[in-house]
Order: sequence, then C-alpha cells, then structure tokens
Amino acid sequence: MLRTEETICAPATSGSGAIGVIRISGPQSIFICSKIFFPSDIRIKLAGQKGYTIVHGEIRSDEEIIDEVLVSVFRSPHSYTGEDSIEISCHASGYIQQKILELLVSKGALMALPGEFTQRAFLNGKMDLSQAEAVADLIAAESGKAHRIAISQIKGSFSGEISVLRADLLHFASLIELELDFGEEDVEFADRSELKEMVLKVLTITRGLSSSFSVGNAIKNGVPVTITGAPNTGKSTLLNLLLNEEKAIVSEIPGTTRDYIEDTIIIDGLQYRFIDTAGLRQSSDVIESMGIRKTFEKIDMALIILLVADICEGSQALSGILSEIRNEISGKNKKLVILVNKTDTDHGEKRKEIESSIELNENESLLFISAKTGLGIDELKTILGQLTGTDKLLSENIIISNIRHYEALLKVTDSLERVLAGLEEKIPEDLIAMDVRQAIHYLGEITGEITTDEILGNIFRNFCIGK
Amino acid sequence: MLRTEETICAPATSGSGAIGVIRISGPQSIFICSKIFFPSDIRIKLAGQKGYTIVHGEIRSDEEIIDEVLVSVFRSPHSYTGEDSIEISCHASGYIQQKILELLVSKGALMALPGEFTQRAFLNGKMDLSQAEAVADLIAAESGKAHRIAISQIKGSFSGEISVLRADLLHFASLIELELDFGEEDVEFADRSELKEMVLKVLTITRGLSSSFSVGNAIKNGVPVTITGAPNTGKSTLLNLLLNEEKAIVSEIPGTTRDYIEDTIIIDGLQYRFIDTAGLRQSSDVIESMGIRKTFEKIDMALIILLVADICEGSQALSGILSEIRNEISGKNKKLVILVNKTDTDHGEKRKEIESSIELNENESLLFISAKTGLGIDELKTILGQLTGTDKLLSENIIISNIRHYEALLKVTDSLERVLAGLEEKIPEDLIAMDVRQAIHYLGEITGEITTDEILGNIFRNFCIGK
Repeated sequence: MLRTEETICAPATSGSGAIGVIRISGPQSIFICSKIFFPSDIRIKLAGQKGYTIVHGEIRSDEEIIDEVLVSVFRSPHSYTGEDSIEISCHASGYIQQKILELLVSKGALMALPGEFTQRAFLNGKMDLSQAEAVADLIAAESGKAHRIAISQIKGSFSGEISVLRADLLHFASLIELELDFGEEDVEFADRSELKEMVLKVLTITRGLSSSFSVGNAIKNGVPVTITGAPNTGKSTLLNLLLNEEKAIVSEIPGTTRDYIEDTIIIDGLQYRFIDTAGLRQSSDVIESMGIRKTFEKIDMALIILLVADICEGSQALSGILSEIRNEISGKNKKLVILVNKTDTDHGEKRKEIESSIELNENESLLFISAKTGLGIDELKTILGQLTGTDKLLSENIIISNIRHYEALLKVTDSLERVLAGLEEKIPEDLIAMDVRQAIHYLGEITGEITTDEILGNIFRNFCIGK
Repeated sequence: MLRTEETICAPATSGSGAIGVIRISGPQSIFICSKIFFPSDIRIKLAGQKGYTIVHGEIRSDEEIIDEVLVSVFRSPHSYTGEDSIEISCHASGYIQQKILELLVSKGALMALPGEFTQRAFLNGKMDLSQAEAVADLIAAESGKAHRIAISQIKGSFSGEISVLRADLLHFASLIELELDFGEEDVEFADRSELKEMVLKVLTITRGLSSSFSVGNAIKNGVPVTITGAPNTGKSTLLNLLLNEEKAIVSEIPGTTRDYIEDTIIIDGLQYRFIDTAGLRQSSDVIESMGIRKTFEKIDMALIILLVADICEGSQALSGILSEIRNEISGKNKKLVILVNKTDTDHGEKRKEIESSIELNENESLLFISAKTGLGIDELKTILGQLTGTDKLLSENIIISNIRHYEALLKVTDSLERVLAGLEEKIPEDLIAMDVRQAIHYLGEITGEITTDEILGNIFRNFCIGK
C-alpha cells in the first residue's frame, strides 16, 4: 500500500450542495494540476504560487471549459498530508467532479484509497496513529461529548499521556537492562521498591484508561438504554415522547411492539440509543414468546434499563416483574430506573403503596411519570445524565473510545502485572525485561511508533475516500 | 428580500465526505469570523489578510475547540458575491458544521436564503441574470451536453447575443423616437426598408433562439423516449438492456408492465429519459385498458417513439399497430423507430417479408434487433443520436434551455412581428415605438437589466442553500 511517490486525488465532498472539493496530494500535485488548470490572470503560474494561496481560473479539457474553479495551493510540509497538495473547489455537479478526476488521472494522478490522505499525514509525521484515528471519529461524531473526545484525541492529549507512560517504561527498561549487562557481577542498579512504584504508577494510569473505555464507547456509539416492562404499560408512548416523533407503533392492544425499535436521541450533548422491546409476560403466542426471549438479550446489551410499570396495576404487579429483572441483571453493573407510568390521573393511594413497598438497591431509581402528558420526563433526562456519569469523567480525565486502544491497553496492563509479580517474586531480570518490552511495544502500537501494514490497513480501510 | 447590508452564512456542501465548507459573505464577514477563528500562527490577524489567501487555525466556542479548519479570505470586489467573503473548510461532521453556523449567527451573521450568494453576485454586477440562472443548471447538469449549454451560458455567450440584439433595437428605437420628436414636421430620419431589414435580422435570431428551446430543454431534462408495441414483444428486455440493469420486471406473461418505468441513460453525452409502457392491444382487463390509454398519453410526451415488434408475428401484426401509432403521432413532429425484435433465431423469410411490406415515411427508421443478445443495439444508439440532432446544433448555435428565457423570447418575437406589420402598414411611429420598447423590455428581463422582486424571487428560490 505504500506508494508515496505517487500523486493521489479524490473527491473530498459528496452529495449535493453548492461546492465540490477535489483533493490532490503528492510530489506531482502542482505539476499535474497546472496541465488542466488555467488561471484567469494569465500572469499567474501555478508552479510559482506560494502555499496557502488561492488562484481563480478554469479547468479545461483540451479546448472545452469544464468549470470555473478556485485552486488552493499547499506546499510541503505545510499541508494536511505534509506533501505538496492542491484543493480544487468546483461547482458541486457530479458530472464536473467526475470529469476533473478523469483529467487528473489522465495527467498522471492515481485515485486515492480510503483514508490515504490521512495515512500519508501519519507516515509523514504530521500526526500519530491515535490522532489519525480520531479524524474518522471526529467526522462521525454526532453528539457534543463524542465530538469533545475526538477533538481532544486529535489535539494529542491521549498521545501525550501514552508518550509519558512509554518514556517511564523505557527508563525502567534501561535500568533493568543495565543490570543484565552486568549480570555476572550481581549488581543491582535499580532500587526494587522504586521500580515497583514506577510500575504501579504506570499501571494505575493504564487501568484508569482501560476502564474509561466503557464510558468512552458509550459516548462514541451512544449509551444503550432498554425500555422494558409488562405489556401495555406505555413503553412505546414513552419512547415516542423521548424521541419526539412517532417511530414506535402505539396501540391499545397489548403486545403491539414485537420488533426492536432502535433510535437515538441526544440529551445534554450525550447520545442515547433507545431500544424498545416486547412486553415482558408469559405468552402462548410463539412470535411474542420469541420477542420476550429477545427482550432479555436486549437488557443484557443495555447500560441503563428503564422498567415501565402501570400505576393502576399497583405494587403487586411491579414487584413480580422487578424481581425478574433484578435477577436478570444481578452482578452486571447495570443501572435500573423504575418508571411508574400513567400518573396523569390521580392515584395518590397507589403511589403511596408503591413507594412504601419497593425498596431500592444501589444503582436503582424510582420515578413517577406520565408518558402521555410528559410529567416527570425532564427529571428522567436528568437522571439519565447522572447515571452515565460522563460529565465528571469528561472534565477530569482522558477517555478512550477506540477498541484498538482499549485492547492494546489491556495487553499493556497484563504485561505490567506480570512485571509487578516478577519483581515481587524476584524472578530473573531478563524475564522482567521481556514483559516491560512487551508493554512498551503495545503502547507504541497505540501511537503508531510500532506498526504493521495490517494495523494500518485495518485502520484506514474504514476511512472515507478523500480523507 | 434585499438585505445586502447583512452578512450571511450557509453550508456550501452537504452529505458526508471528508471536508465541509461553510460560506460567509457580506461586509462583516471577516470581522465576524475573527471572533470565532484563532489562527495557529498567532502573529496572523484575519483582518490583515489579503484576499485569495488561506489561514490555518481553530474555531473555538469560548474555550472549547470546535474544529481545526482552513479559512479562505476573499476581499471585495474579488469574490463570488463581489463582497468580502470567507470560506471555512472544516471536517465534514454535521455536528461541527451546525456548531460553526450557530457561532457565526451568534456573532451577527444571518443564515443565507436559497441562492442568496448568487443573487448578491447578480446584484453586485458579477454576473447577469441568465448567467446566474446557469449556475443552478451547471450544478444540476448530469450529461456532457447539458453541462456544455450551462457552461456556455455562464461564460456569457447567450448574454452577449441578447446584448447585441438589444443594442440593435435601442438604435432602432432612437431613430423612431427622433422622428416622433419632429412628428409635426413629418420628417423621416430612418429609411423604412432599412428599418425593416434591421427588425427582420433581430427576428431571425430571436426565432432561432426560441426554436432551439425544444432541443435545449431535451438536453437539459433528457430526451423523452417512449417504448411501445404489442404485449410480449420484448419492450422491457430492451429497456433493461439500454439501462444496463434490471429495473423493469420481465416475465413471460403478456401485459406484465402496467406502470411507467422511467429511467435515464446517457449516450454520447446526451441524456435520454426512457419511458416503458403497457403493451398496446385491445384488453378487457380494466387495469390494463387504463394502461393502454396512458400509453398514448406517454407517446404524446415523447420526442422519439420506439415501436417494438416481434419478428415471429410477421408484417401483418406490425402493420396494424404501426398505423395506429402513425395515426396518433401524425403532424406532431415526432420521430418513430420501428424495432423488429427477437431476431436472434433465424427468421430470414419473415425479415424479407417485413422489409418489403413496410414503407417508411419521413422521420421513421426500421431496425432489426435482438434485445436478448444485444444485436443491433449499438446501431439503435447511433440512430437515437442522429434523431435528436443535438451535435450539429451544439457546435454551431447558442441553445436556450431555460423556459423563462424561452417565454421572454416568444414575447420579443411577438412584439417584433407587430413592429414589422406596423412598418408595412405605415402605422404611426408612436405605436411602433411602443412595440420596440416592449421587445427591448423583454430582452432586458432575460439578462436582468430589467427585473422585479418577483422575477428574482422565482429564480433564486429554486437554488440550493449555500449557492
């Protein structure tokens, strides 16, 4: 895949609009463009243009005018890729963009592969690998919080943290390896307890980063929330209210929702994926039984479970279903919100009865709502925000949201735990050094100091063309 | 709608991609941007940037980084709109673009209306009205020929022609009006036959332009082609072959196609809209009868009719349906191509029989094909190209493709014909002058020298946002 001697081109915009942008990067960018681009001011030569300037003119194919365009010139190393680059801003017609790309290719450019511009930026040292990955995350980010994680990663806060850890471990490794060199003489250059402290410090950080992944992943992909409860308690009405639109089919017939309606909503800058499920009850209907089985699967995938109950049914009905759910999620670190619904009409007695009969465990909340009138919904939204706890994490910590980083960090943690045990058990330095080297290796994989074609291939194939 | 004192902003790209572009135009463009944009090189001030330069930096909302962007600066009058303008090139995330637009609006910009950038370009004399209209046509152009008409119109060839005609008529008017001033004295400044010649010259051109509209319109919107014939003659197979995909349902049951499948294909840079129809036969099936009635309506809308016949059915069947079609299109200036299909198996005798029995009229062609094997399809494509006759027109003439221009030209022609009659009948100069003034007025409406809010509103409301 390495073909950096080549000049590549691709559309950087897609869809309709007013402007289309075509990107060209590589050593021949300016030369190739000058063959098809004719400045309006004939005294201007593209080859003589400084970086960070724009030229107005025409793209021509032989004598035919293809479009009036603006050409932006970037000179190596001051460009996104670090190479000489051109951006052609043309009218957003598919025909025109196709034609310009054809012309560029006919003059010697190659069509860029997905992510090839960013890959070149990485290879030319414009960004490390985790920053390059954040570019794709940034483009995909739909919520304020997901955006903030991606921006922070692009700006290098995560890379910085990893570099510090790596420097610490390299220092550690050098001490250990010095001892190895003098192995015969039984010299101890490094104070064991100091070494242990160093490893522990690094471990605390890698463990912290790993454990931020569940939140980071929820922020990036949306916090999964399951809505469940007995049939006809108003689950779909609640979902509709939260989504502000009529996605779920609401009817008076119990058991209407058999499929899983998944939709996302952004509350306070955080995206939630709401999963509506079939009602939970014993059913002789085969299709519905399957639905109920799947409901439990969906509960398993959720971070937050909204259990909806009908206030008219009283505490008895709620208790039954509640113990079923508690059973299902026991020990799984999920949050449960019990929503007693249909409180729009007066149910003072029932309310007291429920309040007194339900004893809340940790990670559980109880809220009286009316999905019909919207009563209690703002409170529910506040509770959702508190349960995810992203605000605190976002303001204080670096959060990882990339599964590749997570897996590498788990391996780092693993290696370091072996180092720690080795130090305790006074096993030979060369074995300890191996584990330290392994931890350093995996940290290097995150930022791309150590990389393989396979890793690069996996990362950039998921990019869009033109990025 | 005039609010040129305001600074407007809008996304200029839509959909996913690598890059998103946001446009800002108006007197406060640079000032407003400088409030949210922070150059990487802190020595750079946006307010001090020359036009046609680019600055790298960050968009920030308070302390929060929204994106790393490139900001292109354009100084009045050297911009698309003629005003100070900015283009912000950011990552193509909906969240980011929304956020940047919100920031711009919070700092005093207004969201642009559809076409408002181009409207400002027109109001600031950067282009005339027909050129502005061609911008929308250029973006929408899907075929090479439609693109060429739009580009030629943007470059002003049509405007140039109109200006010449207008100058001629203004000269004519001044001569007539000079006579009016001396009306009492019965002076004749202008030689009547010279005047007549002048009007005839202009008339020839306006008539030519008007008559180019049918071709121009076909090029812009696609040449309408109807495929018709008896049931089960292979119409849908032929359509599929032309479209290179399986859009129409092909089955062995006669009368399968009841709906009108419309699809477009570009052959030799020209777009065709193919309309498949229900088979033409007497039918007792109500739905199919309706289909047949509609087939005739579709034939009426087409420029070219492809009549498909099954060679096995022989000349008898063909003659029947042919006379029906000829009857339908008689005097309507349509082109008919008779396609005798299913010639993949040997039918030498039938072929001779058909060739000898069918006598072709003007505007008719006969071709033996096999929609199954593709035999004769290239020949059919060549015939289609010849029938539209666009190549000759495109290379020699200005073609109009805009119905507003067409209607204005009809009014010009109308006025000039009255002038001509007036000159013949020696009616008073003041009446002639009125008609000449009217012709001048309508020519001015085309280029926008004369315009109303209503005309502008109609034109720009069809533009996209950001253009």
